[in-house]
Amino acid sequence: MPEFLTLLPPDEARALLLSHLPQPTTDSESIDVISSLDRVLAEEIIAPHPLPEFQRTTVDGYAVRARDTFGASDSLPAYLTLLGEVPMGNAPSFQIDAGQCASIHTGGMLPNGADAVVMLEYTQAIASSGLRPEESGKSEIEIFRAVADGENVIRVGEDVAQGQLILPKGSPMRPAEIGGLLALGIMSIRAVKKPRVGLISTGDEVIDPSQSPRPGQVRDVNSYTLSALVEKSGGEAKRYGIFADQFEALKDAAAKALSDCDAVIITAGSSASTRDMTADVIRSLGEPGVLVHGINTRPGKPTILGVCDGKAVIGLPGNPVSALVNGYLFVVPVIEKLLGALPKPKATVMAKLTVNLSSQAGREDWWPVKLAPSPFGRGQGEGLSAEPIFGKSNLIFTLASADGLLRIPPDATGLSAGEMVEVVLI
Amino acid sequence: MPEFLTLLPPDEARALLLSHLPQPTTDSESIDVISSLDRVLAEEIIAPHPLPEFQRTTVDGYAVRARDTFGASDSLPAYLTLLGEVPMGNAPSFQIDAGQCASIHTGGMLPNGADAVVMLEYTQAIASSGLRPEESGKSEIEIFRAVADGENVIRVGEDVAQGQLILPKGSPMRPAEIGGLLALGIMSIRAVKKPRVGLISTGDEVIDPSQSPRPGQVRDVNSYTLSALVEKSGGEAKRYGIFADQFEALKDAAAKALSDCDAVIITAGSSASTRDMTADVIRSLGEPGVLVHGINTRPGKPTILGVCDGKAVIGLPGNPVSALVNGYLFVVPVIEKLLGALPKPKATVMAKLTVNLSSQAGREDWWPVKLAPSPFGRGQGEGLSAEPIFGKSNLIFTLASADGLLRIPPDATGLSAGEMVEVVLI
Repeated sequence: MPEFLTLLPPDEARALLLSHLPQPTTDSESIDVISSLDRVLAEEIIAPHPLPEFQRTTVDGYAVRARDTFGASDSLPAYLTLLGEVPMGNAPSFQIDAGQCASIHTGGMLPNGADAVVMLEYTQAIASSGLRPEESGKSEIEIFRAVADGENVIRVGEDVAQGQLILPKGSPMRPAEIGGLLALGIMSIRAVKKPRVGLISTGDEVIDPSQSPRPGQVRDVNSYTLSALVEKSGGEAKRYGIFADQFEALKDAAAKALSDCDAVIITAGSSASTRDMTADVIRSLGEPGVLVHGINTRPGKPTILGVCDGKAVIGLPGNPVSALVNGYLFVVPVIEKLLGALPKPKATVMAKLTVNLSSQAGREDWWPVKLAPSPFGRGQGEGLSAEPIFGKSNLIFTLASADGLLRIPPDATGLSAGEMVEVVLI
Repeated sequence: MPEFLTLLPPDEARALLLSHLPQPTTDSESIDVISSLDRVLAEEIIAPHPLPEFQRTTVDGYAVRARDTFGASDSLPAYLTLLGEVPMGNAPSFQIDAGQCASIHTGGMLPNGADAVVMLEYTQAIASSGLRPEESGKSEIEIFRAVADGENVIRVGEDVAQGQLILPKGSPMRPAEIGGLLALGIMSIRAVKKPRVGLISTGDEVIDPSQSPRPGQVRDVNSYTLSALVEKSGGEAKRYGIFADQFEALKDAAAKALSDCDAVIITAGSSASTRDMTADVIRSLGEPGVLVHGINTRPGKPTILGVCDGKAVIGLPGNPVSALVNGYLFVVPVIEKLLGALPKPKATVMAKLTVNLSSQAGREDWWPVKLAPSPFGRGQGEGLSAEPIFGKSNLIFTLASADGLLRIPPDATGLSAGEMVEVVLI
């Protein structure tokens, strides 16, 4: 008999799946900050000392006591006695008293007594006794602009104060985070261990991609597209191979994958019988088992979402496009939850749709689209146009030539040519 | 004397830099498709055979000759004789003649003679002589819907035809490209070798991040933020260490880096004297030398762009925020050009600005912003708000807590609260 599915809206299905996963318990490991790019922080980081640790100037010029410059102008400059030059990388050996100043370079440490810096552009050095300033032991500096207390200065702790929470747990390690930690001398962190995702392909017709298919056979694509997606999302993929449509063998493989890994994905052979078998396997692996069987989305209707004893087990359709699109929709959020990563916005671009696209009300559609500079001229953003790639949803090259996926929400019956649409980059 | 720079607009500066780089000559190497994620294809790929290689059904049902179903309806079904079941992963051993059909599962190979598939939902099996269909050798199938020639079938070569260009040179290897190649049995490709980018930090005040700074010293941040950025952009970073403000030593280090690498970045000590030294070093390394000294952008005004004998040499300001933001603006495009990567849209999101931001006309500003679900409710996209992070441009933690960078174009004098703005994710 044909299988009639009760379809859930994708957002609801995803929320149901995630709500059945426990809070992330994935282990952490100590790694070097220098090689932590794209990892997720498993601890919160508190500043061990203030940054900067000393008052620094942000400009080249003269360190002064601000009050000595008050009222200074081009027509009525202030005159300050030059004490010397602040050496880069050292504390100055002198202090600034009333009427005194010191030459200082960007990043240099303010001498005691100084509280502001006048930019070089607003000053002029006058040699005493006819010598050039650098030749004279003591010379005078004309100051043409007043500065306020703290002007052109970064105060101690202005970047971060000692004891401040600087990175919360779940922070992604991007170049800026790496730099921030190293600026504080923090050389290693606890990072969330990459969640392991086990991948199983099923189907009597599926063979390893290195083999030559006989008529009727196709190469396994899903184990590899999904491995790449898992890796891209911060997980570690473990492939368990291809299984024929035999319940016991599939169940044993899935049970092994489930005990090794933090989540398991089974891409079903595409026939209804193997889809049913996947659901049965998920039911046999643990509680509560299958949560969702059938999602109101295209592609991907037969997707199965389950949780077995606290671990996500997802059955994806066998066709490569459905499997990959539903990987973006359901596998990536599971990995993000396992990582305990702070929520981050999806990378999207706005583009102008080139043609009308119709859709079935109640169903969420994901269309592969190609982006190009917009023939309509510069609109919002970079002025892009989004051209849907037509083709049956089973054709992997519709995705390989796409720049992104365009969502038609369930409450729409379509989108109109010329409309600005949001494209999720893939 | 203070240094007065002639500032170029950033887009013009970038175009000038890229125009002086030769066409990418970076070597290629053979890699496994399975581990090619995020690499760039160095060759074009032609389909060695059609995909699929045999006619497949996209549904569960009965393979038929379409003309045998013409006129079939609920009230007037067509009756076809069931020949058997198409085995998954094998060519059927029979062919379909007039009045005949065969049971077939999604992905199965159409028997010769069949040209369409009727979905299971629109059929009913009737046992001959009172037996259930599966028990009877020959039974009849009632067909309640007509199908057109080719309906529910993927024809040979419908995904890709033999000899078709499937991936152009410069394609990024994403999960879909990996899947497409494996579907065709292509197990290895020529990928562009990762461009090597040499990194040099300068400044008497700069020390290795693992050391404890004395008063006046700061830890090297730029070598590591830029390494991470290079790696994230598909390059390979090579760090040459920290050099004091001595022309000959810096020149020797830069010359060595330039001979080892495909591009070199020198982050200047932040004082004017070391910035000038960076420019002099670039001039000494090869022709044409310094192309741009000073860019009309904030942060990053003192950025230096040069090309020495065909390789980019970039001098970035010493302050970590300027260095990293200008890394996004100038280093990433150089790496993309070296990779020969096809142009791809920048990952952005649209968000509603929370406050007024003023800017100087003629200058392009990049503001770190924090994204949050919009208090204004659901607008375009996900309904995000963009909250600028204020602080002096030297504070690395303004970037570490930012989700992205907001651009104020040179022709604007600011942006207004409530405006929809484009934020480049970092």
